[in-house]
Amino acid sequence: MKRIVSADNKIIKLVRQLKSKKGRDKSGFYLIEGPNLLREAVENGAEIAFALFCESENGGGAEGAEGFASAVLDAGAEAVLIPRELFVSLADVETPQQLMAVVRKPVCGLGLVVPGNWLILDKIQDQGNIGTLVRTAEAAGFKGVLSVKGSGDVFSPKAVRASAGALFRIELGFAESAADAVRIARASGKRIIAADAHGSVSCYEADFSCDLALAVGNEGNGLSREFVENADMIVRIPMPGKAESLNASVAAAIIMFETVRRG
Amino acid sequence: MKRIVSADNKIIKLVRQLKSKKGRDKSGFYLIEGPNLLREAVENGAEIAFALFCESENGGGAEGAEGFASAVLDAGAEAVLIPRELFVSLADVETPQQLMAVVRKPVCGLGLVVPGNWLILDKIQDQGNIGTLVRTAEAAGFKGVLSVKGSGDVFSPKAVRASAGALFRIELGFAESAADAVRIARASGKRIIAADAHGSVSCYEADFSCDLALAVGNEGNGLSREFVENADMIVRIPMPGKAESLNASVAAAIIMFETVRRG
Repeated sequence: MKRIVSADNKIIKLVRQLKSKKGRDKSGFYLIEGPNLLREAVENGAEIAFALFCESENGGGAEGAEGFASAVLDAGAEAVLIPRELFVSLADVETPQQLMAVVRKPVCGLGLVVPGNWLILDKIQDQGNIGTLVRTAEAAGFKGVLSVKGSGDVFSPKAVRASAGALFRIELGFAESAADAVRIARASGKRIIAADAHGSVSCYEADFSCDLALAVGNEGNGLSREFVENADMIVRIPMPGKAESLNASVAAAIIMFETVRRG
Repeated sequence: MKRIVSADNKIIKLVRQLKSKKGRDKSGFYLIEGPNLLREAVENGAEIAFALFCESENGGGAEGAEGFASAVLDAGAEAVLIPRELFVSLADVETPQQLMAVVRKPVCGLGLVVPGNWLILDKIQDQGNIGTLVRTAEAAGFKGVLSVKGSGDVFSPKAVRASAGALFRIELGFAESAADAVRIARASGKRIIAADAHGSVSCYEADFSCDLALAVGNEGNGLSREFVENADMIVRIPMPGKAESLNASVAAAIIMFETVRRG
């Protein structure tokens, strides 16, 4: 395996660039960390450009790295070994795992071609929420996640971690505005469902028989006007307690899994 | 309103102490930040010891502080004004809100006296998850949250924020071990439900007709053996996607709201 020691190496520079949204947008790549995500990426056919392995303390390859390295090479990627100190400086988490990889962002063309239910993220800010929403959508059998401009980056390290590999198994799309998302969902024949604490229909009574585009809104401000005005249905989650609202990830999960329950 | 400028003042020292779990455990107090949480605390009869207001930039009281200050005084607490720089140094969040308060931890005696459904947190680590679980449990009409030793602190600043005020409206209890939690739940006549991805019963078919104690496990390792072995039922959430599991907050939310749907 090739060994890189210079912080000026072009691969190392690329990894550093991927820490910012700007860098990810410009390069078209993002970063994943740890063996679990790398395995998921390989299994689901994500395009891996480089895999970086952390040298063990005695200077050898990381434990278990050989198996991963061969899987990575089979997937057409380059595998490199880097010194521990340099690796730690690149990692996003405080206790870095033994490997990371540079993955090409999928070409995102959510549209007519993706049948089934979609989740629309309307300016969701928290990166943990974004990843959890992607994870839950995939688990619930949803086929696409459409992120409206103003939402946090689904390819940020924290969102990628929280998605637990689901981002490799679901179509990701991007809309320039709430109005654009409504247009895309309509053109794809989806029934637009807005989730709102003051919705007129209980999620337990709503008609979920067609393909849905479920829109969930910003943690503080709720849904954009465009979704509320253009929704086929505004659904609420009945709450016996005194809470005014639920966490955005939780609210979306309850509604998405209500479609699972109906079968 | 009394003005404090010295970082050596005993109230300031107490606030600093409340940043650690040790300090919260020792003193019996915890910290809340921002007008929303303070209003919830006052409305729900939490015992507030001190409210700290941030001086405005021109040296006067914070905007809207008077209304809060009188509510706090009515609640029997002391209200103090502190310089902006000192306030910012005490706040947990990067963009601090204009006030914070020192609140007495409730006397926690979850047991026979709390009828209704309970949620059991079995070594949940993420403080955001802990707060979200408390928030969701209260919204779903659950009456108690029993935290097993080894879980993160429900009174940590991040958990308090994520609970969105629900921690003032639900009974909080603590168990020394998983076995202790099982014993407490049994003694209170609860039906123990373990949430596990490999459970034998679908949550959509499970019998939720009695008072429940729903146990959700650690994000990485799942539930302790004691819950799996002693549960009246081990329930799974059917997942059409390829995910192996759900986020702990999401899984608990789906099951808790399934009890809401049944009515």
